[in-house]
This record gives sequence, structure tokens and C-alpha cells, in this order.
Amino acid sequence: MNDIFKKTMKASNSNIIDTFLNPKSVAVIGASKNLGKGGNWIVNNLVTNRYNGKVYPINPNATGKLYGLEFKKSVLDIKEDVDLAIFYIPNRGIPELLNDCIKKGIKGAIIEASGFEEVGEKGLELRDQILEITNNFSKIRVLGPNCMGISRIDGDSISENKGGFFSGFGTFQEYKRGNIAVISQSGMLNGGYLMHIMSKYPEMGFRYSVSVGNKMDLSEVEFLEYFLEDPTVNVIAIYLESFKYPRKFIDLCKKAKNIQDKTIIMVKGGLTKQGQKASLSHTGTLSEDTKLIKAIMNQAGIIQARDFDELFQFARTFSMLYSAGKTLPKHGNISLVAGSGGAGTILSDITMHYGLKYPLLGDKAYKSLENIFPEWMPPNRFAFVDIWPAMEKGMRTNMSRWEVIQIAIDAVLSEPEVEGLFNMLFCRKGITDTMDFDKYAESLNKSSKPVFLWLVGQNKEVRRITRILNKNNIPNFPNLENMVKNFWILVQESKNKRI
Amino acid sequence: MNDIFKKTMKASNSNIIDTFLNPKSVAVIGASKNLGKGGNWIVNNLVTNRYNGKVYPINPNATGKLYGLEFKKSVLDIKEDVDLAIFYIPNRGIPELLNDCIKKGIKGAIIEASGFEEVGEKGLELRDQILEITNNFSKIRVLGPNCMGISRIDGDSISENKGGFFSGFGTFQEYKRGNIAVISQSGMLNGGYLMHIMSKYPEMGFRYSVSVGNKMDLSEVEFLEYFLEDPTVNVIAIYLESFKYPRKFIDLCKKAKNIQDKTIIMVKGGLTKQGQKASLSHTGTLSEDTKLIKAIMNQAGIIQARDFDELFQFARTFSMLYSAGKTLPKHGNISLVAGSGGAGTILSDITMHYGLKYPLLGDKAYKSLENIFPEWMPPNRFAFVDIWPAMEKGMRTNMSRWEVIQIAIDAVLSEPEVEGLFNMLFCRKGITDTMDFDKYAESLNKSSKPVFLWLVGQNKEVRRITRILNKNNIPNFPNLENMVKNFWILVQESKNKRI
Repeated sequence: MNDIFKKTMKASNSNIIDTFLNPKSVAVIGASKNLGKGGNWIVNNLVTNRYNGKVYPINPNATGKLYGLEFKKSVLDIKEDVDLAIFYIPNRGIPELLNDCIKKGIKGAIIEASGFEEVGEKGLELRDQILEITNNFSKIRVLGPNCMGISRIDGDSISENKGGFFSGFGTFQEYKRGNIAVISQSGMLNGGYLMHIMSKYPEMGFRYSVSVGNKMDLSEVEFLEYFLEDPTVNVIAIYLESFKYPRKFIDLCKKAKNIQDKTIIMVKGGLTKQGQKASLSHTGTLSEDTKLIKAIMNQAGIIQARDFDELFQFARTFSMLYSAGKTLPKHGNISLVAGSGGAGTILSDITMHYGLKYPLLGDKAYKSLENIFPEWMPPNRFAFVDIWPAMEKGMRTNMSRWEVIQIAIDAVLSEPEVEGLFNMLFCRKGITDTMDFDKYAESLNKSSKPVFLWLVGQNKEVRRITRILNKNNIPNFPNLENMVKNFWILVQESKNKRI
Repeated sequence: MNDIFKKTMKASNSNIIDTFLNPKSVAVIGASKNLGKGGNWIVNNLVTNRYNGKVYPINPNATGKLYGLEFKKSVLDIKEDVDLAIFYIPNRGIPELLNDCIKKGIKGAIIEASGFEEVGEKGLELRDQILEITNNFSKIRVLGPNCMGISRIDGDSISENKGGFFSGFGTFQEYKRGNIAVISQSGMLNGGYLMHIMSKYPEMGFRYSVSVGNKMDLSEVEFLEYFLEDPTVNVIAIYLESFKYPRKFIDLCKKAKNIQDKTIIMVKGGLTKQGQKASLSHTGTLSEDTKLIKAIMNQAGIIQARDFDELFQFARTFSMLYSAGKTLPKHGNISLVAGSGGAGTILSDITMHYGLKYPLLGDKAYKSLENIFPEWMPPNRFAFVDIWPAMEKGMRTNMSRWEVIQIAIDAVLSEPEVEGLFNMLFCRKGITDTMDFDKYAESLNKSSKPVFLWLVGQNKEVRRITRILNKNNIPNFPNLENMVKNFWILVQESKNKRI
């Protein structure tokens, strides 16, 4: 067995992780009045997002107040207990001030500065100093260095109901609490990219975002273990460049197989030689050998994504699935209701490519479709409904477009073999604005089978309907292949599960 | 050789295709005052988009005017010559009125109704009647049936400079003239989906959209042949469920290999058994055997896309490439300038997966990078620039973020082996709004090497910058894998080319 499997982590300590995620008080070392400095942004993030603990700005050269909070020269000047120190100072100054934190009895430190393992010899010296001062992290636990800290999301920026613990130097202006937790070895993913996702998909809700950086002490496994126990988390989205404790990681992933409402999705960086080179200069960690990574991922049995976009797309789908209380499809038996033969053809090709099937309809479902179709073009025997002829008949018989669609959807979803539905929706003023989409969404959620919508049409109308569907946790896609892939991934996860 | 290769088309006749694309006058058979009917929408499309020819609404039961145009009972009542007839009436009435068109000397007919080959026996009878009346299309040429007509785009809906020939029953409210032509066997693609694309990417310019439907007479090849000669067209985006004249299709694709500024991109529907079944009930054409399709596509040597979204994404990339006068990369030698190590790692994995390489930098390029990087973290020897340390140094030496980025970009693009650049841009108020993006875009377009941007950050700022980049024909992507795939497709096309 490879050496990497032999490394063992310290006895896991959910108390210390709880302190990192829910500190009652924090000292910001390197807090600054300079609006261009990270030490300013961190305090600003804490204050404007109404962090529910105490904040102490620390800077030996500053006087007065920062966002209403009095500067201290050192953590040793604070009278009350402090749970956590957040460092935003250049790397050289860290060992000494970390020593102050130990003296003060602070339990944990988040080190956001870079300039350690990833820069070679000088950085390694600094690391050795830290190992000595902390007595191999027995005196204080450390997250980082080279990271974006921790974000815990309690509230919702949209409804002016802000709230959370945002300790990174990135800015977080749009966010919403939800059931997704992020663990990432790239601060960009916890910072800029997460901000990007949160502002692009304001409906996506997050609970935590943890940036593990160089993983000098704490790593992915301590947080993964915690999130598997945390009832507010359903989806754990992970980006790693290296595994700190592969055996423990695999064990935790296996544990997730026995939990019904937890899904782990991961992007692994450094899968190729070129990626490994990049990773080394990024976090100073060498990605494992490709074969070893594959062995780890196979044993773990979790969902893999190819890039950040796919990671969050999958996370969004699972987040909605758990929120709506839908059932994972086991066999990949899908159905379709669409008004375009061309889309149906391509969709069939793609579903077949992904190994999904349209099952045959039983007599009951078929009969109710037969009723709405014209005689000259009876419906398909498969759960594949090109709805156009039925809509044309509906126009002649004064049946609304939506009644026709509703009957078709109810018919295929009532078929026991069918595990889910793809519904193509053409969004256009004069068509879709005659319909109550909240009611439509509600009816789609009566079934425990996942329903995915492919939205096409006028951009403004697409966006309006998207918002309603999002609110109702109905996955929707502008792209056919993504829709199929996101359904396929549900089937994969059902195969991962042991319960 | 398979029988399908033996079919030969009529002697190609670019005059008749010119009549279909640029008719001087059209009769709309089935024009209606009823706002809920396709025959109303067609006339409305022609009038509101300022079609530059004459329009004659035809309806034996209507009197008075429609959008200012006098109704006629029959095409035989029109005194002037008429180039084209557009049919929007139920299938049964078509043979008789087609006979009227022949009597009137009308050269071409667009039949948009469905209910022919795709509905079985009754439809086949109708087809046989049409074949007889038209003497196998020697008396009048026919586009369709079961189609969305032709759109020719002359103007720009955004700038209130409307103009074009829109003969389909879909509505076209947002469009822009450009260098892309669409040929599709699914009317949805020419109608709703194209509308979707045009409103989602208002910068994408189209010249023609041709819906060939069941291809009773005219097919993809006549239009493809025309577009290869038309200097206003650079990119031809095709969706087919079947090949009418495979040999001719292959010949035309081979011809395109010798034209520097033409690219053909295609989605083939019915690649799988399930897709073939769907195609049969859609346009009444049976997709060819999978092996045969592969043989045709391989011989054709054109770009293949997997679904509609990818089709238009590739079309957008090539459209921008030709508009900006960029050079196709031959070897797949790419460079990177990015501010995130994590993104760099994943991007490296994906580029390697697609067979792209980061070449070694020569001394000149390396030296100019060395100047902007701090000593403690010198730049990479490869054309792979993690710009963060240089930006940090820039902050200390009062060099703006943009000066640093510009030097790095100039350095890698000046390297002879480098054929293109991936640039990651983090968009955030306070960062990107300090910069003149028109100037930035201009500088990126000084090089003939394609530059692709990956935009991440605040949604509003991303969209603002996207608009500027689009205007300047700089491809930009929210998704890493799509960015890489779109560059890879340029390399494929350069391999297709014989010049």
C-alpha cells in the first residue's frame, strides 16, 4: 500500500470544528483602516453581515475605532475570552503573533496569508517555526495558511435579513442560507467563484464555505466529518488538489452512503501532469499519482464533477432535490413531454448516450394520453410525448394548452416504471404569461419523482419563469445535455447509496 | 455502396435559391385577421420587420385589409408578378392552391403546415398529389412542408433599424445581422430556439435561417451550396435528422475545406435508435444507420456539436473569430494568464484532456515576465502565468493591476509558439470598473491570436463586461470546460482546412 494511506489524522474533535464554524468571539490580526487592505475587508464583512459574536480589531500601529470597534495593540490586551484569531498579515510576522494567541488561550487561528509551502525553502522554514511554537498544533489549531477563511451563512442578503460569519477577505454581498456546504483547497472557489455563483443563482442556498488552503493542520476530513453530522447540510461540494488523509476520506465518503439525505460532490484538481505542476505552485501540495487518485475516488464512491461550474450545477440539483423531498431515480427510467420533435430527437440521442430509458406506458397512462391526441396522430407507446398534436387538438376543442400539458404530465408521472420527467417549456409573452406558474410548480411537486424543465424562448420570460421554478426547487436548464447529465447524476448517486 | 449515396439532386440552381432568400414579392396563403393564427403572424412578421418586397395576403373568406394590405381571394387575382407563395393552411387544401400558384407563374412555395410524411398513409397520399401537380417539382419548387420558412436578416432589432424577410410563423423580436447562416430540419430550431439564442446573446449576428422541414423538394444541400458562395456568410450551423443527398453533402463540405473564411458546424439528430424513432415521428424521415452517419460525417470533415446549445456556442466562437480577423490555431499551443491557482490547476487538467499544450517561453518573453514578478516567486517557464504574485508586487511598486496584466499578456502573446490565450478575469466593482474595457479589448485584438476570457465575479459586473467584449468580438465564457472546448474546436477546424 502506498505511504499516503498510512498517515493518520489526530483524533477528530468536533468541538474544535464547532469553534471554527461558530466562534463566539474573534480577533482580527492585521485589521486596518486602509480601505484597500484585506484586514479592513474582513472586519467589514463581519460587521456588515451582522456576525453574532464579538470582534476585536488588532493592529499595533492603529488607534481609535474601526467600524465602531476599538483597536487593540495585541490579543493580549483583550480582557474577555477569544475563540478564534483571523490573521491577515504578511507571512513573516505570523509565528510571533501566533505565540501571543497561544498565551491568550485562543483555541483556533485562521491564517489567510500565502507564502508558505508553495514558495519553497523560505516558506518551509516559516512552517517549521509554526510547528514548533504550536507544538505540532497541540496548543492551537490552525486553518490555512493561504486560504479564504470560513463563511457560515445564517441569513439572506436579498431579504435584507443579513446574517452570518464571514471571515474571508473576499466580499460577500449576495447570499442565501441553504443546505450546501463547500470545502475547497482553492480560496478562489470560496471567494470570487462562490460570489459569482451566489450572484448568478441567487436561489442557491449555502450553509458553510470552508477554505482549507495549504492544510498545514486542519484539512478536508475534519470538516467533512462535521458536515455529515450537521442536519442543516445535505450537499457537500468539495474541491481538492491533494488528499491529506486518503483512508479517512474514503471512510467518511463510505459513511455518507448510509445517510439518506447527504450527497458529496467533488472536483479533483491535478488529475493530469500539467494540472499537478500547477497545483504544486498553487498550494505547495503535490497531487497524488493519477492511478492512486482514481483508486481513492473509486473507493470513495462519490459524485465527480469536471470543473467548478459542473460542481455547482450538480450541487444545485441535489440541493433542490433534497429541499423538495424528491426520490432518487434508481434505474434511469425517464419520461418526456415536449412540443418540439427536433428537441425530442436530440434529447433521445443524449438520453441514450447517458444510458437512460423511456419505459413503455401501461394501458391506463396510454389511454389518458390517447384521449387528448388527435386520431390522425396517436401518442407514442413509450413515455415520450411529443405534445404538439395534442395541443393542436386542444385548440379545436377549447381545451387550454395548460390543461393538455397537465394531463400528459399526470399520465406519464402516474406510470409506476417512470422515475422522472423532462418537460420542455417554450417561454414567450402571449403563451407562458397566461399561466400560473406557482400552481404549475406546486402540481409538479405533488409527485415525489424529480421533474426537470428545459426552458427556451424569450430571455426575459425565461428568467421570470426560472425565478418561480427556483423558488419551488424545480431544476431547470437552458441546455439539453446538462439537463440529461444532471438527471443521470441522480441515478449515479442512487447507485452509491446503500440504503 | 449504400443506396442512399446513389440519389442525385437536380442540377443546382442558385437562381431559385436566390428567389427563396430574396423574393421581390410574396403571397401569404392563409393570411388571417385572427390574432391567434399563424397566417396572421406571418404577415405581421413581414410588415413589422420592414420586408423590402411586396406582400399579398390571400384568403377567400376575408375582406378588407390586414396590416394595411388588401386581402385577395386567390393568387390569381394579383396583377403583378409574384416570386414566392407562403402557405399557412391545413394540409388538405394545399394541392389545389399550389396548382393556382403554378398557373400564376409563382416560382417557389414555402409550405409550413405539418401532416405529410410524418403522419403515415394519409400524408403520403397528399405528397403524391403534390408530386403530380408540380410534375415532380419542375413547375414550382417547394420548401417544406412541416417547416418554419426562411428568415433573412438585414437589420438590427436593437438599434430600431429593423429589416429582413421573416416568413415563419414564429415571432422574431430581437435579432441582429451577422455572418451566421442556419439550416435546420427542425422548425423549433429556426423559430423558438433561435429566438431564445437571439435574445440570450443579442450580440450574435445571423444572416439567414432556413427551415427545410420534410424536404419534399429543396433540402440542405441547395442552401449549403448557396451559403458557400455568399460572401456575407462565414459560419453555417446545421441541424439534420437525415441526409437527402449524402454524396453531394460530402462534396460541399469538402469544398468548404478550401475556403478560408467558412466553417460548417453540425448537430446530427437520430444518432441512436431512440433518436431515430423520435425523428421518424417528427419529420417522417428515418435517420440513416449509425455507421453510415459516422462515415458521412468523417468524410465531410466538419465540426460536430452534441446539442443545440453547443451548436450555437461554437457558431458564436467562429463568428467572432472571423469578424475579428483572427488566425486559427494549428497545434493547440495555448497560454494562460490567471489570478487563481485553483482555476489554473483545473484548467491545466482540462487543457491536457483536450490535448492542448502550454509551450515553453523563450528568453525574451520570460524576461519581461521576470521583471514584474517578485524574487521570492519567479514566473513559470511555461506560458502559464499565475499572475497573483506579480499583482501583489505591483501594489507595492505602484504599478496598476492592469499594467501588470497587460505586460503578462503581451509577453505570452509575443511568444511565436503561442497560438492563443486564456485570460481569467475577476469582475467586481472596485476592481474591474476602474478599467477601460474598450481599450483592453482593442489591445487584445491587436494580436491575430485568439484570446478567450473566463469571466467570474459579480453577476452585474460580469454582464457589463460581457457586453463590451461581445461588441469587440472577444469570446468569453462563464465555464472553464466550455472555454477550453471552444478553443479546441478551432484547432479541429484548422485541421479540417486544406489551405
